[in-house]
Amino acid sequence: MSTENWKTSITKIGPGTIHVKGYNITDVMEKLTYAESVFLILKGELPSKAEAELMNAILVSSIDHGATPPSVLSTRTVMSAGNSLNAAVAGGVLSIGDTHGGAIEQSAKIMQEWAAKDGDVSKIASDLVDWLKENKIRMPGFGHRIHKIDPRTAKLFEIADKHGYSGRHIELCKAIRTALSEKTGRKLPISIDGGIAAVISDMGFDWRLGKGIFIISRVPGLIAHAFEEKTREKPMRKLGPLPFDYDGPDEREID
Amino acid sequence: MSTENWKTSITKIGPGTIHVKGYNITDVMEKLTYAESVFLILKGELPSKAEAELMNAILVSSIDHGATPPSVLSTRTVMSAGNSLNAAVAGGVLSIGDTHGGAIEQSAKIMQEWAAKDGDVSKIASDLVDWLKENKIRMPGFGHRIHKIDPRTAKLFEIADKHGYSGRHIELCKAIRTALSEKTGRKLPISIDGGIAAVISDMGFDWRLGKGIFIISRVPGLIAHAFEEKTREKPMRKLGPLPFDYDGPDEREID
Amino acid sequence: MSTENWKTSITKIGPGTIHVKGYNITDVMEKLTYAESVFLILKGELPSKAEAELMNAILVSSIDHGATPPSVLSTRTVMSAGNSLNAAVAGGVLSIGDTHGGAIEQSAKIMQEWAAKDGDVSKIASDLVDWLKENKIRMPGFGHRIHKIDPRTAKLFEIADKHGYSGRHIELCKAIRTALSEKTGRKLPISIDGGIAAVISDMGFDWRLGKGIFIISRVPGLIAHAFEEKTREKPMRKLGPLPFDYDGPDEREID
Amino acid sequence: MSTENWKTSITKIGPGTIHVKGYNITDVMEKLTYAESVFLILKGELPSKAEAELMNAILVSSIDHGATPPSVLSTRTVMSAGNSLNAAVAGGVLSIGDTHGGAIEQSAKIMQEWAAKDGDVSKIASDLVDWLKENKIRMPGFGHRIHKIDPRTAKLFEIADKHGYSGRHIELCKAIRTALSEKTGRKLPISIDGGIAAVISDMGFDWRLGKGIFIISRVPGLIAHAFEEKTREKPMRKLGPLPFDYDGPDEREID
Repeated sequence: MSTENWKTSITKIGPGTIHVKGYNITDVMEKLTYAESVFLILKGELPSKAEAELMNAILVSSIDHGATPPSVLSTRTVMSAGNSLNAAVAGGVLSIGDTHGGAIEQSAKIMQEWAAKDGDVSKIASDLVDWLKENKIRMPGFGHRIHKIDPRTAKLFEIADKHGYSGRHIELCKAIRTALSEKTGRKLPISIDGGIAAVISDMGFDWRLGKGIFIISRVPGLIAHAFEEKTREKPMRKLGPLPFDYDGPDEREID
Repeated sequence: MSTENWKTSITKIGPGTIHVKGYNITDVMEKLTYAESVFLILKGELPSKAEAELMNAILVSSIDHGATPPSVLSTRTVMSAGNSLNAAVAGGVLSIGDTHGGAIEQSAKIMQEWAAKDGDVSKIASDLVDWLKENKIRMPGFGHRIHKIDPRTAKLFEIADKHGYSGRHIELCKAIRTALSEKTGRKLPISIDGGIAAVISDMGFDWRLGKGIFIISRVPGLIAHAFEEKTREKPMRKLGPLPFDYDGPDEREID
Repeated sequence: MSTENWKTSITKIGPGTIHVKGYNITDVMEKLTYAESVFLILKGELPSKAEAELMNAILVSSIDHGATPPSVLSTRTVMSAGNSLNAAVAGGVLSIGDTHGGAIEQSAKIMQEWAAKDGDVSKIASDLVDWLKENKIRMPGFGHRIHKIDPRTAKLFEIADKHGYSGRHIELCKAIRTALSEKTGRKLPISIDGGIAAVISDMGFDWRLGKGIFIISRVPGLIAHAFEEKTREKPMRKLGPLPFDYDGPDEREID
Repeated sequence: MSTENWKTSITKIGPGTIHVKGYNITDVMEKLTYAESVFLILKGELPSKAEAELMNAILVSSIDHGATPPSVLSTRTVMSAGNSLNAAVAGGVLSIGDTHGGAIEQSAKIMQEWAAKDGDVSKIASDLVDWLKENKIRMPGFGHRIHKIDPRTAKLFEIADKHGYSGRHIELCKAIRTALSEKTGRKLPISIDGGIAAVISDMGFDWRLGKGIFIISRVPGLIAHAFEEKTREKPMRKLGPLPFDYDGPDEREID
């Protein structure tokens, strides 16, 4: 075994002091939003104003998607079987996989690989769609089970545009949509997964962090479901794609 | 089996629309911080300005605590054994338990029960310390393995004071510290767990959500460790309380 | 930190040698059944012939119970979301809790506490049923969602009787059934959970191992379901209490 | 969504009856060993006598390997943090991955692919070793951190030989060892992972079940460690590759 100490670059701990990526935790608590802190701990540097707003919007966008996703089903099942909250969250996080939440990293991987090629994005998008067709690959991050248009993606790109932040990956993402429409005749929406993939790629995140960002975003939703299961339902309930009704607050406006 | 549909009050989903606790997700993405959204989804209502700042500070405060906590050890061990990021996070979340992260809910439970009693907080704190001594219970949320004073708690209470937000639970928390010092002679610091417990109790959160708030806060740290393990270390590394060095950015200031 | 080494009494490893509870693993591989090895590793000693047969029957009895239990639902959901086999098993094991598989330990706890009292078992059973009624507790391990009579319990007790092994806990278990019937008018079957609880109590197992024995028994079933999900179904399937048909082998006899 | 019921071929449940792969569970409880039942549920058919002994030896062989493997570390860490037994087992199972327990399936995959080629096994083994060298791949299932010779593999192959059961995969496995020794000069032992891989391949198991068989085998060991942690150690213990001593029973013989 090596006698050298192993290394970590994340957090430095001393008696009475905690520094995350070099910043004193008490300063971070006061001066940064939580979304900015998430950016800092994953990227190592503070975000610009545009990046801070985008990271905030990303984390908010996927905080919950109702009672049907597999991760919610698993969280509620573990809770319903009589377990602790952390076990229920773990069960939910386990159900996030290649086919649930995985489209972000798959989409970001493809975008990062193709955006690195020379040439303009519409030519790259056109080549990419040909390649997808040849290899019978469905472009991840496009299309949605429920939404014909994903309103979250539109908002995300709107924020990026407002700051003049849209870079090569967001542009490629839009060009892929156009190329898919022209070459296949199907006008698929860019799902929030595809939208997040494009934005974090422009931010310079490694595509392998895509699922991580989705997990951070979704955990509060899983906890809300676990707590609702615990406080509203009987133990060992039969769960699954059964009919349910929403009985929360009516639609309302943020003042 | 009941023929009635089951109910959820969290999120309403329709084609092209998502409302969290009644608010349109695209409005939330633009107008609320992620910390405010976490408050909303767990509490059902929007936070006040003071509550928003406090929730933000709470989530930031526990985002990471270096490489030694059990949850980090488990996350890195799962990653090191050759697993996916979500499995590593699940492993870490499983290691958050009654003795790691659990002090928030245990402390909040006691504070909520005792703050509900009649009388002023110093009398209640004094009775509580007697009760703890009689029953040989260690007050959860006081004392820390590493920190003699927990700087995060001081910052949290400072933010509460700035807004005139400190209520009966924060006051009881401080009174418990005084009573512990007077009756046992030990000047224990209020750990961040105790601090969070007092603040979320003043915010009106059910104590059973204490571990949930800690999990939300810590998940980004776990992901940072998982990713560092994946990208810096060899597979199936021997992990544990081995010596390690911090080699991240030097101490620096937020502009 | 203590400078003394910590201790383990389970397995001794040296270069080229492995001893489980003192026995050379290669001897165990050849001379003991796997059920006997499970008994050995949990209890520290070799089982008698009766105990070996009973432990075997216990492990077989709960190997699977079709596609409806929460643990199967979770395992299949994790698998369906695009995860590895070990993550799927972990998800299933997380869904074993106080209300699924937990009846063994709850039932064993009560039986071990009450069997320790003086007097004959029918008097104890009668007092116990009174105590249950007063405290509005449902006796765990009695009654079953699907089975009016649980054929597995009958077989387990038959094996115990054949060997003259039925001790105070099995007798108490039967007496509880009689007392419940006399005092409440309901002829509840002893479920397999109750049956296992009685037998492992007669074997001298700590009741806190009840859930462990259930987990050991059920894991092969979870793996069979995970593999079937992987090889027969499409990814990200909607799972839950949906109608399904059995299309495996017809009923047949062991030669 | 399809209106057709989905299908499962594992277990048929009716009121008062349970049939696993067509066999009445009460018959299985009485007539089959647990190892035979595991074979049945994973393979769909009853094992021959040789297969029954081999499956038994396989499950026993990996039941525990002391306190150092990642899965034991994770299980004990989750338990030590104050969690339930099933959460601890789930944490341990999550730490079984490509680099811990994964060698069985990796090795079986290679053996199954190469054994399917025409020609005698020594020629195939020779080509395989060339291919490994060219592609800089380490042959999984050969070599061991601790053992120069893995006594468990020798015993497994001895049982196979006794029954005249050794087929093309076991022979290929032995030929690979010879070829590795001749071409690289390193006499690597066939680890138990490699041994199990060869045997289950001769039994006709899909290589993707390799990790599943390892998980089944190891879970009782994880439960023994979780229970020992719970009953012998203080909560939130610092765990890792720290020195520990074995203080269980002395070496002894099975009568």
